[in-house]
Amino acid sequence: MSSEFDDDTAVTEQAPGRYAGTITGRWNVGPVPNGGYLLAIAQRAIGLAIPGRDPLTSSAHYLRPAVPGPVSIEVETIKQGKSLATASARLLQGGREITRVLATVGSLDARGAPRFMDGGPPALPAVADALLPPGPPPVEIARRFEQRYDPATLAWAIHGRAEVPAHAELRAYQRFADGRAPDVLSLPLFADSMPPPVFAVLAPGWVPTVELTVHVRARPVPGWLRCRFSTRFVAGGLLEEDGELWDEGGQLVAQSRQLAAVPSRKW
Amino acid sequence: MSSEFDDDTAVTEQAPGRYAGTITGRWNVGPVPNGGYLLAIAQRAIGLAIPGRDPLTSSAHYLRPAVPGPVSIEVETIKQGKSLATASARLLQGGREITRVLATVGSLDARGAPRFMDGGPPALPAVADALLPPGPPPVEIARRFEQRYDPATLAWAIHGRAEVPAHAELRAYQRFADGRAPDVLSLPLFADSMPPPVFAVLAPGWVPTVELTVHVRARPVPGWLRCRFSTRFVAGGLLEEDGELWDEGGQLVAQSRQLAAVPSRKW
Repeated sequence: MSSEFDDDTAVTEQAPGRYAGTITGRWNVGPVPNGGYLLAIAQRAIGLAIPGRDPLTSSAHYLRPAVPGPVSIEVETIKQGKSLATASARLLQGGREITRVLATVGSLDARGAPRFMDGGPPALPAVADALLPPGPPPVEIARRFEQRYDPATLAWAIHGRAEVPAHAELRAYQRFADGRAPDVLSLPLFADSMPPPVFAVLAPGWVPTVELTVHVRARPVPGWLRCRFSTRFVAGGLLEEDGELWDEGGQLVAQSRQLAAVPSRKW
Repeated sequence: MSSEFDDDTAVTEQAPGRYAGTITGRWNVGPVPNGGYLLAIAQRAIGLAIPGRDPLTSSAHYLRPAVPGPVSIEVETIKQGKSLATASARLLQGGREITRVLATVGSLDARGAPRFMDGGPPALPAVADALLPPGPPPVEIARRFEQRYDPATLAWAIHGRAEVPAHAELRAYQRFADGRAPDVLSLPLFADSMPPPVFAVLAPGWVPTVELTVHVRARPVPGWLRCRFSTRFVAGGLLEEDGELWDEGGQLVAQSRQLAAVPSRKW
């Protein structure tokens, strides 16, 4: 069964370690394809180079804005161990590298390992009481998801930014609009698919990601993801954004952190 | 003026992009040199390849344990832009890669940028009321630092682990034992130099880092760093550890996150 995500991240092997894909405009924020989407394409290629493993931790450094169109992916297998393997992936468009990824893959199947959870899924109202995404203008990527926001985190979008809230935080349900279930390959995209939470405290604009790291902690069960994204520190022209993604079974499935530039009017 | 940190992270250029250094045993945890120390060596080499920039975000993926002895560092300058530059560094010992680093450097001098701080330095007692590191056995790296812990976060070390605390958190002052001031190059090491906070809830052992990412957010002023490290989620044989480092001027100077394996008896 085809899905927008599977179609738009598909890559084919051209030679060992060399893959070809197409960046579509369906995951754009303004004119620019989303960074989590690019990371997902890289993970698809890494999954062909090193099959049968789960992505555990991956970092993407964004060098130049991508454009919709062909992309080639060069995967270097750095180390292939029994339990862990590490690879680097270069995304190239028109001969220029746009994104570099460093990823370690392994297994999420550890049995009997110790468990400690200091925190649970984000508090959210029932889906029926959560709100559609803040807008306008809707960005193209927003059409790929169903998102339902906790109204408590949307005061800035509903009432304006007259009073700056204490927290730059967004809590929401997310799932693919076409019904595709979340999985370990799509979690990097879910980790970067909501509006920047910093919009609660700073006027919206383009927030270009410098670096995004995603830890995948479990395989999600089908259904909504419960997500919490927050920015705690804006200084020196940069901000961090932290994310937690939980599945309908109450499992933590991913943690994310990115370093991004403060909102600007320039694309 | 020489210092242990400067001496032990010194690298010399062998050819463009190729550097040589020595990993000393002074930053060992058991028989294994510390991961933050290896990242600092990589940053020294990147600083020679791309001079005059501040490290903003760097991710290290650890492939094999390092050993004290010679190390060669190969730096690839991936992109050199006006405001940001990105480089990759390979650390090699005996011809085998032990660590891969991906880093973006730039400037921490942004003026007039918006500022939002949701949180401040960790609550700590006066230095005189804080405790020496928990032990025994002291690890070699602990001799390189003065560390003074908040007793409230050391109940497990003082009274044992009969009652599992609600949080796996350590708060402490840190500075170099030889008086060297903290700077942007040493922050990756400070971000990985305290005992794992998970020891509050799981029996201590070796906690090998899979991946460590450090965001440098400001240049520290001389003096103590106020540090907070916590682990919130242990599952599937892995844990995350988050760090915040603040300087004596009350500035957030770094945030760190690592993915590591649960404590084991095996080195």
